[in-house]
Amino acid sequence: MLGNFQYYNPTKLYFGKDALEGLGIELSRYGKNVLLVYGGGSVKKNGIYDKVVKILKQHGKTVFEDGGVMPNPTVEKVREGCERARNAHADLILAVGGGSVCDYAKAVSVSEHCKEDFWQKYFIDFDEPTCEIVPVGCVLTMVGTGSEMNGGSVITNHGQKLKIGHVFGDSVFPKFSVLNPEFTYTVPRYQMISGIYDIMSHILEQYFSGTDDNTSDYIMEGLLRSLIHSAEIAVKNPEDYEARSNIMWIATWALNTLVAKGKTTDWMVHMLGQAVAAHTDATHGMTLAAVSLPYYRHILPYGVQKFARYAVNVWGVCAEGKTEEQTALEGLAAMEEWMKKIGLVMNLKELGANKEMLDGIVKSTVVMTGGYKVLSAQEIYGILEKSL
Amino acid sequence: MLGNFQYYNPTKLYFGKDALEGLGIELSRYGKNVLLVYGGGSVKKNGIYDKVVKILKQHGKTVFEDGGVMPNPTVEKVREGCERARNAHADLILAVGGGSVCDYAKAVSVSEHCKEDFWQKYFIDFDEPTCEIVPVGCVLTMVGTGSEMNGGSVITNHGQKLKIGHVFGDSVFPKFSVLNPEFTYTVPRYQMISGIYDIMSHILEQYFSGTDDNTSDYIMEGLLRSLIHSAEIAVKNPEDYEARSNIMWIATWALNTLVAKGKTTDWMVHMLGQAVAAHTDATHGMTLAAVSLPYYRHILPYGVQKFARYAVNVWGVCAEGKTEEQTALEGLAAMEEWMKKIGLVMNLKELGANKEMLDGIVKSTVVMTGGYKVLSAQEIYGILEKSL
Repeated sequence: MLGNFQYYNPTKLYFGKDALEGLGIELSRYGKNVLLVYGGGSVKKNGIYDKVVKILKQHGKTVFEDGGVMPNPTVEKVREGCERARNAHADLILAVGGGSVCDYAKAVSVSEHCKEDFWQKYFIDFDEPTCEIVPVGCVLTMVGTGSEMNGGSVITNHGQKLKIGHVFGDSVFPKFSVLNPEFTYTVPRYQMISGIYDIMSHILEQYFSGTDDNTSDYIMEGLLRSLIHSAEIAVKNPEDYEARSNIMWIATWALNTLVAKGKTTDWMVHMLGQAVAAHTDATHGMTLAAVSLPYYRHILPYGVQKFARYAVNVWGVCAEGKTEEQTALEGLAAMEEWMKKIGLVMNLKELGANKEMLDGIVKSTVVMTGGYKVLSAQEIYGILEKSL
Repeated sequence: MLGNFQYYNPTKLYFGKDALEGLGIELSRYGKNVLLVYGGGSVKKNGIYDKVVKILKQHGKTVFEDGGVMPNPTVEKVREGCERARNAHADLILAVGGGSVCDYAKAVSVSEHCKEDFWQKYFIDFDEPTCEIVPVGCVLTMVGTGSEMNGGSVITNHGQKLKIGHVFGDSVFPKFSVLNPEFTYTVPRYQMISGIYDIMSHILEQYFSGTDDNTSDYIMEGLLRSLIHSAEIAVKNPEDYEARSNIMWIATWALNTLVAKGKTTDWMVHMLGQAVAAHTDATHGMTLAAVSLPYYRHILPYGVQKFARYAVNVWGVCAEGKTEEQTALEGLAAMEEWMKKIGLVMNLKELGANKEMLDGIVKSTVVMTGGYKVLSAQEIYGILEKSL
């Protein structure tokens, strides 16, 4: 049943091969100082950086550089970014990159003018911003996180061994995002596949929760079926525009707040994956892939009806003459086959984890309560052991 | 394949049993003069009018009345509304009603300050507004049109025998909409069922077009399946909150621009239905229901693949051992059965049409080009004849 909620998503999207033209349109709304945020430099190699800078210059902007954003952006990097943004008197923070770069840009946008310690305020106390927020725009070069159309920002504090995500309200959403599927062509295969599973996991975290009849679940089944189909095409031919454009669009709608409206959600796979990442520094999507099936098989008895529905509506399993449990298990078997087919890492060993680390990972795992079973420490250990 | 497009939908939605609380939150953003727009008075009988006025008064607003908006709002009524809005120096136009009331409010919002003739400018020349636009908010009491989250406005000119819809840009979208499924409980059964089919038709008009692989089609399949399921529950028990809330949510997402992104669309069923309505004044959704199946069976050979996909993914038809055409036809048969089950009018005779009117209806029918077959006048006649 659809509960009480608000829906408001003010991010403007420019989608397609000509999407970068949207950047020029948007720039006229902002002052002349632009903090240009990007990652390790791949945007310089693939030419996207040059295209963006050319448009910025054409529109008379003064560009201040803030490169070197790492895949898991750190507290220290955010502090440095705030310093740069202040020195630049930034009127706009333009993120050119993937989810980490967008997440980082949002963290800087709410922290530049923050008088308190931003880490404590936003990521420990989960306060909302009270200071001026610098507007953020995104040019996306990698898909998965949905950060281009939501208020999420995940920041890592190595000193405290914490990686924490804050989902900010709509005032922190990017004002605009440029989504050109061709910009994702040069993403390395491993990252592309990891991103695809991240998208799938975002949907499943919201799907496997609740027992009501909710339109959101039907929308998610559609998104999943489209993702499964397009992923198989994209791994065979990463430059298949149709497949890459569908994947890009699914990523956005998987996590721009729509499909969670009126629903409870789980997010336990992400908690397990993030705990693994804190101990191994493995790629996000792969950590999710490695723990998913052991987790789902463990909780299946507590949500068997939904898992059976998933099998039929998403994986096309025929339910005739089978128990709900059999149908549900066939669905997960089909999912496993697909995961192997697209080349996901299906075990934690390959990601650098070993049995000795499990106790530590269990301790780092935040336990969620919205799924079909609230896990004990022992259950988490068991799931991680099966994921090795 | 997802083509180039922009997506921006700035309408804020308040959804659920407590949604009207959102009205209070929103009112603080606007000046004190509110033009309160409503229809034939059902909102006074069911108490929604009193609830709204109470909130307006609590927030210190001066309320100017503009009731009596008819199901197909006329040019004359819009002129009268502009006059009232000018006299009121309206800071906000608040529509309390169904799609017609929202459509009307939008027409007034772009016409109050328009120096030219609004009918000529917006509905004949399809110009965009250049004058100040008065903000619109909606409190929805009937679902179907999606007008609560889009720029659509359909106005009728009886003198010219024209009923024309203009889909305005995002500056004309309602600033906010209040969606309380309980407010739809008192809608008469015939109107509820008609609204359900209007929603279905909105989705199908966007679905039955194109041959590419597009995520939007998967989303639509999800929306359709949820609608089919909830409609059956709602006709049995109109006060089933779960079903009515799902139907309300589907109506919004069926026509708030999302599912048409990157796609071609058809809208031929609406053209046929509107032509019938111009000659009979029959209820919109019922005119669509009466012409749909003869139309779809006629164009099936030209889009058989999509119709077979529809049969399998929406109606659960098993394709094994069947030709595409057989599968496709079974899907339409399942649709027909469902339409009868929920009580739709399946023929034009019941809606007041007869054979003598067909030539006139053919002449009033606008021919669209985005579907699987561009119809000749003779084909239109044939479809209408089968719909009698």
